[in-house]
Amino acid sequence: MDPVRHLRFSLSILVIVVGCGTLGYTLIEGWTPFEALYMTVITLATVGFREVHDLSDQGKAFTIALIIFGAGIIAYAVGSLVQFMVEGQLRLILGRK
Amino acid sequence: MDPVRHLRFSLSILVIVVGCGTLGYTLIEGWTPFEALYMTVITLATVGFREVHDLSDQGKAFTIALIIFGAGIIAYAVGSLVQFMVEGQLRLILGRK
Amino acid sequence: MDPVRHLRFSLSILVIVVGCGTLGYTLIEGWTPFEALYMTVITLATVGFREVHDLSDQGKAFTIALIIFGAGIIAYAVGSLVQFMVEGQLRLILGRK
Amino acid sequence: MDPVRHLRFSLSILVIVVGCGTLGYTLIEGWTPFEALYMTVITLATVGFREVHDLSDQGKAFTIALIIFGAGIIAYAVGSLVQFMVEGQLRLILGRK
Ligand SMILES: [K+]
Ligand SMILES: [K+]
Repeated sequence: MDPVRHLRFSLSILVIVVGCGTLGYTLIEGWTPFEALYMTVITLATVGFREVHDLSDQGKAFTIALIIFGAGIIAYAVGSLVQFMVEGQLRLILGRK
Repeated sequence: MDPVRHLRFSLSILVIVVGCGTLGYTLIEGWTPFEALYMTVITLATVGFREVHDLSDQGKAFTIALIIFGAGIIAYAVGSLVQFMVEGQLRLILGRK
Repeated sequence: MDPVRHLRFSLSILVIVVGCGTLGYTLIEGWTPFEALYMTVITLATVGFREVHDLSDQGKAFTIALIIFGAGIIAYAVGSLVQFMVEGQLRLILGRK
Repeated sequence: MDPVRHLRFSLSILVIVVGCGTLGYTLIEGWTPFEALYMTVITLATVGFREVHDLSDQGKAFTIALIIFGAGIIAYAVGSLVQFMVEGQLRLILGRK
């Protein structure tokens, strides 16, 4: 896969993960979709002000899964971005298309 | 664009985003500019001690936008830095200017 | 070491660090293994909602060690991922196996 | 500068920044050196559980400076690590010392 596809692919998955996170907190904790979205975004971006409301054990387990999955996707997206930027530079230096 | 310009460009946008964040929290939440700046910095740097004061729904929506936009800019800035550092190395190894 | 081994190696150590973190908080603070795992994950991923319960001085010292060690491992894992992704791209551009 | 020096240099500065952070919180907020160290580490690593105690305005200004300076150093250190890892790979692929 070329870098642009890597990047598009990782961003698409990220959007899906945000959707799953929002759905998850709504179902597991009974939060409003907006609270669940806010929790998902501050968790995946690792800002983590604090849990929007206290979490049940199921909510904590879901959060652990979201963090592990999300961190993997974000590392992959950042890697894709670096790959994309380094590649352009490389082609330029090496003078090859 | 060469890496130095990428880096300068991303840092300029970052400064603008910090300004917008500070303005945003001042207008939406009525915080002092200093509180708003503090909130913006701990949010964009993903330190996220906790919300400086409780956020209204509009403030939460603004925070989500700030995080998404800010994360994009910061990923781009880090990518530029890596690109810049890898490029120097590459030129050295390949013995080309 | 080639990138795939770097990546595997860093992920293995990460799993061990999560195990040590969980064990540490259980022994030092007397938390349940699940609370200790939750604390370890939110700490290593730098989400850091808040300390699950107030920490003793020993718990704080353990947390500092966990962060320093964990940050090193994660930087290494991200570096491995970037190396892995850049390498594939390089081989493709240079047309060498 | 070669990557190993970049890496050593950035780690040395990081240690100095941790020292300055600890000193700063001790002087500005009157915290114990251990509390100040804990605050510095959770801030620079962007874990940010919460402010160890409430911060004065001077303490908040110091925290903003610490985050901006620290984030720059850490980005530089991560960049050095990636540069170091990519370089070894490059030399291997290109078959040059
Ligand atoms: K955080
Ligand atoms: K927090």
